[in-house]
Amino acid sequence: MANTKVVLQEDEIPKQWYNIQADMPTPMQPPLHPGTKQPIGPDDMARIFPMNLIEQEMSRERWIDIPEEVMEKLLLWRPSPLYRARAFEKALGTPARIYYKNEGVSPAGSHKPNTAVAQAYYNKVFGIKRLTTETGAGQWGSALAMACSLFGLECKVYMVRISFDQKPFRKMMMAVWGADCVPSPSADTQAGRKILAETPDTPGSLGIAISEAIEDAVTSENTRYSLGSVLNHVLMHQTIIGLEAQKQMAKVGAYPDVVIGCVGGGSNFAGLAFPYVRDKIHGKKIAVIGAEPHACPTMTRGPFGYDFGDTAGNTPLMPMHSLGHTFVPEPIHAGGLRYHGVAPLISQLILDGLVEPRAYHQVESYEASVLWARSEGFISAPETGHALAAVVEEAKRAKEEGKEKTILFNWSGHGLMDLVGYDKYFSGQLKDYALPEEDLKRFTAPLAEFPKPKGASNA
Amino acid sequence: MANTKVVLQEDEIPKQWYNIQADMPTPMQPPLHPGTKQPIGPDDMARIFPMNLIEQEMSRERWIDIPEEVMEKLLLWRPSPLYRARAFEKALGTPARIYYKNEGVSPAGSHKPNTAVAQAYYNKVFGIKRLTTETGAGQWGSALAMACSLFGLECKVYMVRISFDQKPFRKMMMAVWGADCVPSPSADTQAGRKILAETPDTPGSLGIAISEAIEDAVTSENTRYSLGSVLNHVLMHQTIIGLEAQKQMAKVGAYPDVVIGCVGGGSNFAGLAFPYVRDKIHGKKIAVIGAEPHACPTMTRGPFGYDFGDTAGNTPLMPMHSLGHTFVPEPIHAGGLRYHGVAPLISQLILDGLVEPRAYHQVESYEASVLWARSEGFISAPETGHALAAVVEEAKRAKEEGKEKTILFNWSGHGLMDLVGYDKYFSGQLKDYALPEEDLKRFTAPLAEFPKPKGASNA
Repeated sequence: MANTKVVLQEDEIPKQWYNIQADMPTPMQPPLHPGTKQPIGPDDMARIFPMNLIEQEMSRERWIDIPEEVMEKLLLWRPSPLYRARAFEKALGTPARIYYKNEGVSPAGSHKPNTAVAQAYYNKVFGIKRLTTETGAGQWGSALAMACSLFGLECKVYMVRISFDQKPFRKMMMAVWGADCVPSPSADTQAGRKILAETPDTPGSLGIAISEAIEDAVTSENTRYSLGSVLNHVLMHQTIIGLEAQKQMAKVGAYPDVVIGCVGGGSNFAGLAFPYVRDKIHGKKIAVIGAEPHACPTMTRGPFGYDFGDTAGNTPLMPMHSLGHTFVPEPIHAGGLRYHGVAPLISQLILDGLVEPRAYHQVESYEASVLWARSEGFISAPETGHALAAVVEEAKRAKEEGKEKTILFNWSGHGLMDLVGYDKYFSGQLKDYALPEEDLKRFTAPLAEFPKPKGASNA
Repeated sequence: MANTKVVLQEDEIPKQWYNIQADMPTPMQPPLHPGTKQPIGPDDMARIFPMNLIEQEMSRERWIDIPEEVMEKLLLWRPSPLYRARAFEKALGTPARIYYKNEGVSPAGSHKPNTAVAQAYYNKVFGIKRLTTETGAGQWGSALAMACSLFGLECKVYMVRISFDQKPFRKMMMAVWGADCVPSPSADTQAGRKILAETPDTPGSLGIAISEAIEDAVTSENTRYSLGSVLNHVLMHQTIIGLEAQKQMAKVGAYPDVVIGCVGGGSNFAGLAFPYVRDKIHGKKIAVIGAEPHACPTMTRGPFGYDFGDTAGNTPLMPMHSLGHTFVPEPIHAGGLRYHGVAPLISQLILDGLVEPRAYHQVESYEASVLWARSEGFISAPETGHALAAVVEEAKRAKEEGKEKTILFNWSGHGLMDLVGYDKYFSGQLKDYALPEEDLKRFTAPLAEFPKPKGASNA
């Protein structure tokens, strides 16, 4: 048969997550307290996260067991299928073999639920009754809403007001799962009320929403905050993607020369890539490519240094590539790739030459996504389109070089909730945009005052 | 492990469709020519459908090979997973074991692509370059658009104007797949122009859209018409669902006491149920339940007789349960269940006591869907909600009777494109509605003039 789809049975699913901290050539540098600028310890995070997740965040154990209660929920959509994209290969006329993991099969339509169910579970066993979070376009908010409903936790989502108003369907999803989703800034927090009083017409921002979610968590009973990317434990929860992929690829006797994922905070990329980065550390020759937008070129142009995770500067300082915590990206359709920073783990792997970042334009991303939909059927999320742009680049290179290389990428989610971007693409309204150098300088200038991690490239 | 998910490998997928006509105790009665009222032959349909599909429509062969080219496309999302819904069982407190097939994993989000790719393929090998169809809410139009893009056919979709205006996302999906979707009535056909001249502000109807799609097909070069349900060959293409389910259930040593699907035209129901109806014909004790809305009670209250498939009366007369071809249902959110008729195959099986129809209200359907989303994660299409209402009824009965029965149902599609119905459910705007008896009488009165098939119950 001309197609290839590899599925795993329930009993073949990986039973542990992979913690790349056990294998990194350069150990991770600690996050710093936002006030004292000294390394923080577990207790500094105890009002924000439950201690069992803080322990995971700091753990250097290579393998961490997936609790049975988490596995039970993951099995609703996992193991996700691995496919060979033969029609797409044919459409590109490439000798490359292109494999992909389909993470769009989850109830929320992306990889996000992989960590959402784990976080909901750990909070629940720690005695937490309620989680708060922020969401921009709504992917993370809906994933956490779903996870909380499965574990019987309350969920409060602060959604950036402009998205709340423009994207009503994501908040309807959250309502189906029983979450309380409010536009941010809201009247429900001190931070929100202050901003509303000063600027009643503000469209809101992810930074404001984070501030509200954290304030709510630390001032409410039995409540903690949950983050959908960037942190070590979040990326680790996603490694089930790559661990499954390794088993599936082995079943068809394939091993990738190139592994690709799109990168916002970095969780879907890390999920597929980290088990392969482990192989690379141990000598495998393999390219590991993170694809980001030119409009938000965190990895390719953002300096490495300490920076805040949020706009207001309330989070610990993290050692990462950053465009500056006050960075405001142009409105591009890949809402999930508009974060100013990137996961510290990925930042360190870039420094160590284990991960190669590349930037792509949104028009070429949509171009790749349309070709994909018309050959492979599935409609990609705008974020996933950036991974596809990298796949197309690699496949074309293979064609030019006449090489039969094997490409594996993470099809991180479907675009059925984000069709407006396609509509604008077809009507020619989408514009490419690359961050001007002077803006990069302006947004990153304040970082010079922070302490410098080893390898810092901010002035 | 507490969950159960059964996946099939690529080489375990059924290689043939099941044609229930080979096993029916009462042979199907022929469709009649709309003008002469005499049984029609293959040639009468040759301008509308390609001859290879007409042959399938009339075939009494039990097993029909799935062409390799069709299988290649089906494998993009098939075999679909079978799950046991343990969390839903627990939420209902039922001793029943509830299994379901997840047809929401297809690119269009429902079972519709199963027949769309088959129809596109058969048209292509017959030399057809372009397909036309109508669509109401857009599920079928988007499925056919996808199938045409995979086989390189042009696709023209006439979408009921009110849906075209109110549901912009479905037409964006079709655009991604390269289809030409226009609001119906359109200026592209004589029928459309006539109606536009008379009633420029008409919201359109499925009947008008069918008329336009057929006119376009018969007056354009290398063009045929494609229908997404009702016909014999369409239902047969869906039997891969039930054939897979039988293999999957066997793997966990289970056999259903009750098989459930929602019924509009009948294709997703038939797809799961027909292989089980075959077992029932051969002596298995099994209940096979079709769930429809009280607002459009075709099977439960519509008389059996000859009626047209479209509003205008251009199609052959078909022997089926019907509310009358001029029936206009109340606007309920399950757009796919608003058809005035039901597949002749299913109608005959109801007459023979092999299929049991039941009607449900939309509020109880949404109630079941919300409980489902909060326990099993996935958000159901409003049509699928009617199947869930039947599952809940059966599960509660099992609880009352203290019976450990096994229920299998078709989770025919996700509701991510239809979240507005949930929004209205939560805000209390959804109303139940049962077709008044006087309306039923009025709409079915004209059927008395048509010839009577054996078993006719129309006066």
